[in-house]
Amino acid sequence: MGIMRIATLTSGGDCPGLNAVIRAIVRTSSSEYGSTVVGFEDGWIGLMEDRRVQLYDDESIDRMLLRGGTMLGTGRVHPDILMSNLDRIKENLDDAGIDALIPIGGEGTLKAGKWLSDNGIPVVGVPKTIDNDVNGTDYTFGFDTAVAVATDAVDRLHTTAESHQRVMIVEVMGRHVGWIALHAGMAGGAHYIVIPEKPFDINEIVKSMERRFQMGEKYGIIVVAEGAAPKPGTMEYEEGGVDQFGHQTFNGIGQVIGQEIKSRTGYDVRTTVLGHIQRGGTPTAYDRVLATRYGIHAARAVHEGDYGKIVALNGENIDRIDIDDAVAELKVVPEGRYRAAAALFG
Amino acid sequence: MGIMRIATLTSGGDCPGLNAVIRAIVRTSSSEYGSTVVGFEDGWIGLMEDRRVQLYDDESIDRMLLRGGTMLGTGRVHPDILMSNLDRIKENLDDAGIDALIPIGGEGTLKAGKWLSDNGIPVVGVPKTIDNDVNGTDYTFGFDTAVAVATDAVDRLHTTAESHQRVMIVEVMGRHVGWIALHAGMAGGAHYIVIPEKPFDINEIVKSMERRFQMGEKYGIIVVAEGAAPKPGTMEYEEGGVDQFGHQTFNGIGQVIGQEIKSRTGYDVRTTVLGHIQRGGTPTAYDRVLATRYGIHAARAVHEGDYGKIVALNGENIDRIDIDDAVAELKVVPEGRYRAAAALFG
Amino acid sequence: MGIMRIATLTSGGDCPGLNAVIRAIVRTSSSEYGSTVVGFEDGWIGLMEDRRVQLYDDESIDRMLLRGGTMLGTGRVHPDILMSNLDRIKENLDDAGIDALIPIGGEGTLKAGKWLSDNGIPVVGVPKTIDNDVNGTDYTFGFDTAVAVATDAVDRLHTTAESHQRVMIVEVMGRHVGWIALHAGMAGGAHYIVIPEKPFDINEIVKSMERRFQMGEKYGIIVVAEGAAPKPGTMEYEEGGVDQFGHQTFNGIGQVIGQEIKSRTGYDVRTTVLGHIQRGGTPTAYDRVLATRYGIHAARAVHEGDYGKIVALNGENIDRIDIDDAVAELKVVPEGRYRAAAALFG
Amino acid sequence: MGIMRIATLTSGGDCPGLNAVIRAIVRTSSSEYGSTVVGFEDGWIGLMEDRRVQLYDDESIDRMLLRGGTMLGTGRVHPDILMSNLDRIKENLDDAGIDALIPIGGEGTLKAGKWLSDNGIPVVGVPKTIDNDVNGTDYTFGFDTAVAVATDAVDRLHTTAESHQRVMIVEVMGRHVGWIALHAGMAGGAHYIVIPEKPFDINEIVKSMERRFQMGEKYGIIVVAEGAAPKPGTMEYEEGGVDQFGHQTFNGIGQVIGQEIKSRTGYDVRTTVLGHIQRGGTPTAYDRVLATRYGIHAARAVHEGDYGKIVALNGENIDRIDIDDAVAELKVVPEGRYRAAAALFG
Repeated sequence: MGIMRIATLTSGGDCPGLNAVIRAIVRTSSSEYGSTVVGFEDGWIGLMEDRRVQLYDDESIDRMLLRGGTMLGTGRVHPDILMSNLDRIKENLDDAGIDALIPIGGEGTLKAGKWLSDNGIPVVGVPKTIDNDVNGTDYTFGFDTAVAVATDAVDRLHTTAESHQRVMIVEVMGRHVGWIALHAGMAGGAHYIVIPEKPFDINEIVKSMERRFQMGEKYGIIVVAEGAAPKPGTMEYEEGGVDQFGHQTFNGIGQVIGQEIKSRTGYDVRTTVLGHIQRGGTPTAYDRVLATRYGIHAARAVHEGDYGKIVALNGENIDRIDIDDAVAELKVVPEGRYRAAAALFG
Repeated sequence: MGIMRIATLTSGGDCPGLNAVIRAIVRTSSSEYGSTVVGFEDGWIGLMEDRRVQLYDDESIDRMLLRGGTMLGTGRVHPDILMSNLDRIKENLDDAGIDALIPIGGEGTLKAGKWLSDNGIPVVGVPKTIDNDVNGTDYTFGFDTAVAVATDAVDRLHTTAESHQRVMIVEVMGRHVGWIALHAGMAGGAHYIVIPEKPFDINEIVKSMERRFQMGEKYGIIVVAEGAAPKPGTMEYEEGGVDQFGHQTFNGIGQVIGQEIKSRTGYDVRTTVLGHIQRGGTPTAYDRVLATRYGIHAARAVHEGDYGKIVALNGENIDRIDIDDAVAELKVVPEGRYRAAAALFG
Repeated sequence: MGIMRIATLTSGGDCPGLNAVIRAIVRTSSSEYGSTVVGFEDGWIGLMEDRRVQLYDDESIDRMLLRGGTMLGTGRVHPDILMSNLDRIKENLDDAGIDALIPIGGEGTLKAGKWLSDNGIPVVGVPKTIDNDVNGTDYTFGFDTAVAVATDAVDRLHTTAESHQRVMIVEVMGRHVGWIALHAGMAGGAHYIVIPEKPFDINEIVKSMERRFQMGEKYGIIVVAEGAAPKPGTMEYEEGGVDQFGHQTFNGIGQVIGQEIKSRTGYDVRTTVLGHIQRGGTPTAYDRVLATRYGIHAARAVHEGDYGKIVALNGENIDRIDIDDAVAELKVVPEGRYRAAAALFG
Repeated sequence: MGIMRIATLTSGGDCPGLNAVIRAIVRTSSSEYGSTVVGFEDGWIGLMEDRRVQLYDDESIDRMLLRGGTMLGTGRVHPDILMSNLDRIKENLDDAGIDALIPIGGEGTLKAGKWLSDNGIPVVGVPKTIDNDVNGTDYTFGFDTAVAVATDAVDRLHTTAESHQRVMIVEVMGRHVGWIALHAGMAGGAHYIVIPEKPFDINEIVKSMERRFQMGEKYGIIVVAEGAAPKPGTMEYEEGGVDQFGHQTFNGIGQVIGQEIKSRTGYDVRTTVLGHIQRGGTPTAYDRVLATRYGIHAARAVHEGDYGKIVALNGENIDRIDIDDAVAELKVVPEGRYRAAAALFG
């Protein structure tokens, strides 16, 4: 293709590296093809409502490389709303003279991109998930930063746990998959890791802690993914309570496991819920490189007219795969990976 | 004094820098005076039960400089128990040939040290409080590390808050004083800081957020000390609930403030409770230097027979002050310090 | 004073925290007094050449809190040039309607500020020195960040030195004073620290390393301030060479000491010169708080008409001291501080 | 295989993650197979001289996960010496009852391992190179940590360069390949990257800096791999000088490039040589996970009798490949990877 006018937007939860992707799209489009890039703010809603901003290939965009979050803002929108606005979207893209769209987002965003692609809009997607659950790509940017933040927390809790002879539980992100828990747990030397893919048996967790205390190593670190759940029938547990004052309560699975261990063993048990600090802030060098490479290759795919694809990390290379292949199912932690990690729980 | 045999112990909550203090006591005692040091494990209880370990002036103790927690373990004991065990304590110290004791701990530990000192045991105390609430000393080790961890969290939440147009609340440590909240809030550019010393008016907090959103800066960061409380009569609030399943709930003041802002404004509000990651892990360089200086000077005070004192940072110097002066009252955030910070809330 | 129009500028080497000072001046002036602030770019030269920029009390200035360097740029100018431009400076300040000037800089800048103050320009100075060598203030911002960076380097070199049985030398900043070397060396557990205040005896350094190797601790870490020098008559050494190709060479004192140890002992010795990474990048939380407090108090001093002063940290308080007192002489590492640190060299 | 007795050793330069590999070998061997592990100290020399230490599957080995360097020490030995000691090596392994050997090291170590394997010693190798130059594996542990340290330095230099309108050059590791320079340069937003694989044209580098200054972006960051070299005939340059005092000089290629830019443009140019801080210290979470996985899979390969192989990262999996394939040639930065990065130099 010749010189193009490209649009990009970020959708769904924020993720360290989004700005690095945008920067790489802008700079590659400019320096390799002489093309220009506009952004739509606040995700799909900004595309529907034409919240357009010009993105310039200058010093200011370079500065964004280090910044977490997204300079374009983000948002969520129901697919039905998007679909019912196809005409408006096409109109806005036409008005702005856009030749192709690069949406950056998770499963929902990529599916929407696919649907737009099927409906005549040239689309190349960039996968974004801090949870690392997109099929067809080895890693997604943001994941390494989340693991680094979670691992730093585990490192810090080790010494406290040991000094106070405590069991410390760290609840990390991961509603449907346990990649962050698995990696942060391995990196941090956790004594147990609980992931959604493998319903837990509270008896086994309790036993593993008791074994440590009996061996004289009187503390334990347990990393729990927020989406973990007990084996059916092994433990009473309901999410989302209301206290006697009528306020919503925030007991997550980490706290539930903690209470259970405490009541069964009498150990001093504490739970820390890491929450949003895992997804904000300056990306790690790894994530900046990966996000930059995604941006470079998305810009190239667009200029080569290779639509309906997403860019994906495959070993050392960035490949292009069909969006359908990427969103067909979640990438879960394989049984073997968990078992290998479990051999180190000790 | 000539060559001595010194004992040390750590008591109360753990704190980054405890090991640096112990190392400095051991090395200074050895290299400046030819003295030896033993540690009692698990705080006062270890002194009562004679859980004694020899501390060697070698490579292994140097390695502890970087480690959070305490190599001696820690514990809590009721003053009455301590007092009723005076004879046993004296016996244990005699048996071990101990000439002087250096307890490292917070208000309770220092008071106990004073009481032992009044009862004939040569004691020099080292103040330890992550909350920075000990009178008579500019700063205590561990505080800088806690502020650094909390500030890193605030930095990370900024970009998420901005990308999602959210109010993000960070609950930090500080049951009785707001030093960590004040410093992390100032360092992180928080838009509101809530501290125990100044009961908050929820209306004012809500208004400050509304002002930001009206000005187009559609996000906000609020740092809340865990011990913050509303002005009497301004807001219903009770701690420590139980949900409909009979489980203990964990709604802290940060979550209460968050719910209130959300229900009054409709903004997307999220709360992160930092918890234990603030008190563990490798101390900052600042805390390692301060802790090391405390240890050096405690060893010297002991060898100079200057008992009944604690070491304290006074500007650039480490002074010795009477334990009584240190524990008479908590060091709170002065009104003027808070007002100066508040001018930057914007 | 009522509403004012204030000017600020940054001069000399850059330093983490400069932007935090500027931000605090702008926000405090605006929110407490309704005043406005302009900046002159590139230090004194910008004042002479009227490179004026308006600084706004908005979101963008908040973002600068985390950024190293200075948003106003910096420069150096000879005092004679400044003095010969007094009329032009006054004219520029008059034209811009400036009521008072807040120069942020080191010894030279503060002296220049004093001279301007004596010549009728209302000036309040903010001391800036990464070396921590300004008299009358406990600490200056930037110093903590430099120590943190240097300490991180020392931490990293420890494991390499140990694995390879090497002597590792780290040359840190400090042309005239050894504060950074002293603190980074103490925090990092260095086995020897060499500072400008105490001319070194190479024999003593060599002996201390030999002692370690004989004791079986076959590695050593030495922290050297760039301005360190041998005791007169103890070692041949000249700075600033030229090699056989006519190129300038960069052998610093760290490398000289390294070569000497190597040739005398045969140990594997390596030198790392940290250089500029010590003075750039995001300030530590400590430096952000200190810089912010300096900015707040400089703005207040100006509004209270308290000219000819600098702001200075005194224990927990920010005081105002006469510029003359601050620049009379350098703040050096006292003999006692060095001796206390030396007791830990081991 | 049944229960085994395994030996391991680390050879060549140290690398963050070595201890994590050793820990994973010990724990996996113990918990999955009931096997025990011994280490030989100081690399191959320790194997020849039987410097054997038992490695226990306990708390103490878990602590090593975070530590840089190698708990076994390391060393270098000429292949001829190794080969002439085959009988002694076999004898030592026999005496210790060793069933298989896991050497952890770079190209030379792996070749030696292959030779031993060909000579009847059961060997599984673990590749170690901070430079990431081993063929057949996507990444090697230590590389991510080196890139993280180098990127942090680049981040810090950005603000200084900008504040002072300077060209800052960062010389990073990489004697034969430019992976660290490429990744740190991309992650840090460098304006030029110089790698060994692509001999540089000093005119082009100078022009790229001049372009920036002309565009008003009056500073530049250049990342240079230590092994970079000019295009033949374009620039006089000789390594390893001696100054007029007869001392060895340390002008690396970074300093040579810096001097050249300075003399041609008159810009303020500074060079920082990162050196050893890139290879020491706590590994990143990424490297801890990768190193742990290498250790797990090396232990499994040994127990499955799959000798003459090394473990290698292939996308998401750890594979086993023939040692010969790994050491046949260096993994260099492909032309396309460099060109993609160069499009962002700007």
